[in-house]
Amino acid sequence: MTQPLKIGIAGLGTVGAGVVKLLAEHGRLLALRGGRPLKLVAVSARSKAKKRDIDLSGVRWERDPMALAMASDIDVVIELIGGSGGVARKLVQTALRHGKHVITANKALLAHHGAELAALAEKRGCSLAFEAAVAGGIPVIKALREGLVGNRVSRLYGILNGTCNYILTTMRETGRDFGAVLAEAQAAGYAEADPTFDVDGIDAAHKLAVLTGAAFGTKVNFAGVHVEGIRRVTAADIQFAEELGYRIKLLGLARRTPYGIEQRVHPCMVSLKAPIAHIEGVFNAVVVEGDFVGTTMFQGRGAGQGPTASAVVADLVDVARGHIMPAFVVPAARLTETKVSPMGRHVGAYYMRLMVQDRPGVIAAISGILAKDRISVEGMLQRGRSQSGEVPVVITTHETEEAAMQRAVARIAKLKAVAEEPCIIRIEQF
Amino acid sequence: MTQPLKIGIAGLGTVGAGVVKLLAEHGRLLALRGGRPLKLVAVSARSKAKKRDIDLSGVRWERDPMALAMASDIDVVIELIGGSGGVARKLVQTALRHGKHVITANKALLAHHGAELAALAEKRGCSLAFEAAVAGGIPVIKALREGLVGNRVSRLYGILNGTCNYILTTMRETGRDFGAVLAEAQAAGYAEADPTFDVDGIDAAHKLAVLTGAAFGTKVNFAGVHVEGIRRVTAADIQFAEELGYRIKLLGLARRTPYGIEQRVHPCMVSLKAPIAHIEGVFNAVVVEGDFVGTTMFQGRGAGQGPTASAVVADLVDVARGHIMPAFVVPAARLTETKVSPMGRHVGAYYMRLMVQDRPGVIAAISGILAKDRISVEGMLQRGRSQSGEVPVVITTHETEEAAMQRAVARIAKLKAVAEEPCIIRIEQF
Repeated sequence: MTQPLKIGIAGLGTVGAGVVKLLAEHGRLLALRGGRPLKLVAVSARSKAKKRDIDLSGVRWERDPMALAMASDIDVVIELIGGSGGVARKLVQTALRHGKHVITANKALLAHHGAELAALAEKRGCSLAFEAAVAGGIPVIKALREGLVGNRVSRLYGILNGTCNYILTTMRETGRDFGAVLAEAQAAGYAEADPTFDVDGIDAAHKLAVLTGAAFGTKVNFAGVHVEGIRRVTAADIQFAEELGYRIKLLGLARRTPYGIEQRVHPCMVSLKAPIAHIEGVFNAVVVEGDFVGTTMFQGRGAGQGPTASAVVADLVDVARGHIMPAFVVPAARLTETKVSPMGRHVGAYYMRLMVQDRPGVIAAISGILAKDRISVEGMLQRGRSQSGEVPVVITTHETEEAAMQRAVARIAKLKAVAEEPCIIRIEQF
Repeated sequence: MTQPLKIGIAGLGTVGAGVVKLLAEHGRLLALRGGRPLKLVAVSARSKAKKRDIDLSGVRWERDPMALAMASDIDVVIELIGGSGGVARKLVQTALRHGKHVITANKALLAHHGAELAALAEKRGCSLAFEAAVAGGIPVIKALREGLVGNRVSRLYGILNGTCNYILTTMRETGRDFGAVLAEAQAAGYAEADPTFDVDGIDAAHKLAVLTGAAFGTKVNFAGVHVEGIRRVTAADIQFAEELGYRIKLLGLARRTPYGIEQRVHPCMVSLKAPIAHIEGVFNAVVVEGDFVGTTMFQGRGAGQGPTASAVVADLVDVARGHIMPAFVVPAARLTETKVSPMGRHVGAYYMRLMVQDRPGVIAAISGILAKDRISVEGMLQRGRSQSGEVPVVITTHETEEAAMQRAVARIAKLKAVAEEPCIIRIEQF
């Protein structure tokens, strides 16, 4: 009989409990598929008393997660503690130093310390696997590291945060504004009590940084991601988008430009003709454009117990099969420093919504400012009259440089007739 | 320096030439990613004189492809000859017997001899890899063998033939009938001079049989696939489908039923709400439903030089990395015989289009036949009057058993007022 793969799990929240359930439910199938049994040896979590609806009989309980990293009877440590540093980081470092494979769902940790941990794993001949860190159950890390390995990736983008996509979908379907929908999502458990990481785009940025590293062979560079969240998207913007043939999505995008790698997370106007426009609710999707394969898209559930456990177990089976490779595809020493393409150099089309006082000369003033920065207007929508005397004006532009657009917006915001901060949403061409 | 992986390619058509180009263009990148150089040592093809726009300097030319299978300086043979038996089969067998890894894009070969070749590969400790055989550049075989390995798959389905999808898309967009669009597709190079394999569903059935084996751990069973092509789909059906909120797609579907594994390829009515309804033109897509991951979908280009070469090279890099596993996930000896779920037992909803003489009593007669077989009508569409006196009548049913539907259709076809063979299209619920 082949030796079982001996597993320690640190963190028994939703995902950890899911992994325990999956291992129990599909034990025989996994042994057959992986070529050897997957054996859960020990676990560690903050509270032993917490009700978890999982069977841990015969599994050792460690009060200190570090014990898993050092135990002689453990081959692979699954880190599900979370957080960009602290215990999670120390656990992963210790496990790798003790020659143990590490599987993690921790995008924050990888976004901040991915390159360093990849080097450590490689030095010890260990696997650092993280399918569960990005896009839940969708095997997109595997696609980048293996399935599309023959390609030079020119661009990738995706819906990487289910909470934001759920909020934007619900806003569109109900016509309600961000605040109301967020409150409802929180009540329903689709959004955290503190929603900052999700709605401000940080979670998506963590994931984008990880994807970028795997796709471009660059050192993960979270600091190089331009991040904007969805708080400023209004019901009116969503309605205007539909009229213009777009849908608003929070996307993470990375591409090569002549200035380096551009990484950005922000709300986008996406043509309804683009498949990604139709990914709704809590679903995630990632599009990868390669020079040989062309455009591929991967979609599925981006979070939740089952999908995330599925991803963790896929990594476990890889380890069981002895399929070990550098974390970010190429040897750590060959990962290049990410040269950040400055956001000001970004070229694209823009949607701008202004609330303006409905009086003569306002549109002329705005047009004049845009003309001065050589920004070419593609279209303009003005909607009725309002009691407050302020009406929304929507302007879409042809391609222009971000720096020019920001200059123009700053000037437009200062016009007396412009009532609130202009809302800018970038229009993406796919 | 690590030993290079030494490659022989048999067959230098579109795909073979694409692999040569990819290896040349990304040689350094692939060596970095694969951990060792990928070195093309020898090739074989029918005509040496043919213009191919590839550089074969320094590459040995073998007149007999079998020489590749036996050469001592070759580690892996790429079989791109095609065909379900003959030279391709002999080449793969010989290569495996000589301890060489085999990569193939040959779905016909795998559909007919997959289980046998998998057993042979395993016996010799070799890889039998075939990402390029299904859905072109989309890494869906990898998803089934690895990325979703933690799941029990309940159902999979996909658009597996780009030619059919292109024809159906063009029929919808132009309102023209099958024959005209096929002729145009042939002229444009999107369809073969002999289109039988594509439009009669055989190519899709080959691919479905391979996917089913990998997903369900069953011996590939092409004979167990129920196959119908798209020749009988008319412009009228496509228009009715749109009115009913459906799109017509040729799908390959496989699922577990209480009677065994059901495999079928035929035109389907798919709700416009289903993401797969929006996969248009030459694109392919595969949906996999797993018990933990839920629903995932993979889409991209299903054919063509670049995408197929991308898939072949992904398999090459796996071999270079030493990532070898059983061809159909579980050891060949553990693959189960496919128990075929009889098509008569299939339960689903149906679309039926009849051409009937427009006179009293016809609808009553049809309704009576359906009622006798306890088939419950969901809706009925009757369209205007025609000069010939024949009008189309469309009936959609609630869920019923295929056997009952076929009995009813046979009786309806015999009615004097029914002018031509009824057109039946199954309605799929996703």
